[in-house]
Amino acid sequence: MPCVTTDAGDGAVLMLGWMNDQALRLTIETGEAHYFSRTRRMVWHKGATSGQVQRVVRIRIDDDQDAVWLVVDVGGSGASCHVGYRSCFYREVPIGAAAGGPLRFTEAARWFDPAAVYGDAPSPTIL
Amino acid sequence: MPCVTTDAGDGAVLMLGWMNDQALRLTIETGEAHYFSRTRRMVWHKGATSGQVQRVVRIRIDDDQDAVWLVVDVGGSGASCHVGYRSCFYREVPIGAAAGGPLRFTEAARWFDPAAVYGDAPSPTIL
Repeated sequence: MPCVTTDAGDGAVLMLGWMNDQALRLTIETGEAHYFSRTRRMVWHKGATSGQVQRVVRIRIDDDQDAVWLVVDVGGSGASCHVGYRSCFYREVPIGAAAGGPLRFTEAARWFDPAAVYGDAPSPTIL
Repeated sequence: MPCVTTDAGDGAVLMLGWMNDQALRLTIETGEAHYFSRTRRMVWHKGATSGQVQRVVRIRIDDDQDAVWLVVDVGGSGASCHVGYRSCFYREVPIGAAAGGPLRFTEAARWFDPAAVYGDAPSPTIL
């Protein structure tokens, strides 16, 4: 099921991840975010490679219990997106009269260098 | 694709909805949130029945463009969950030493009476 993860400091949405039963159980028990990778078909401990562990402050579940909301403090550089930005949602979509215009970048710079952190490991994101 | 919707006022996560191409296009063009119902297989205009329209302040898209984040102002009663609460995420899951304990309600009361708003219409949520 989908999992929304927000920053405990300012409430920004950092990422939209996925969880299976095991990922949710590990997150509840350890207090650190675990997700299920749909492409790799495995549970992963967020930050195990990068040090950007997400310490869970709060977990909420929605009305029909098929979505989770995690509120977290992020370790390491404080970033959560593996392409180097703080949030995976670093681009804004123009609306209304501006509809159809180009996406606008909302973060001035990356928070870390993905090549330095992950080396040659293949990126799970096809951009 | 999944869509996280947060409140422009305090950043609370209100709901996790779903969008197809048409729902996203209508949301961008009209500036009001539209979602795709996976059970009813149709696009719906949030608030069309209840008056709790979500006026879109900002739309962001994630790195691999398969998730959307809407920041909204909610009309009517200000609630977004059809069972009557402000947020669909009105229950907290105990973590760490408290893991396995009961869910805790985080809103003191419902913001509206679903029966008064929707009448006998079947609820899309199986609780």
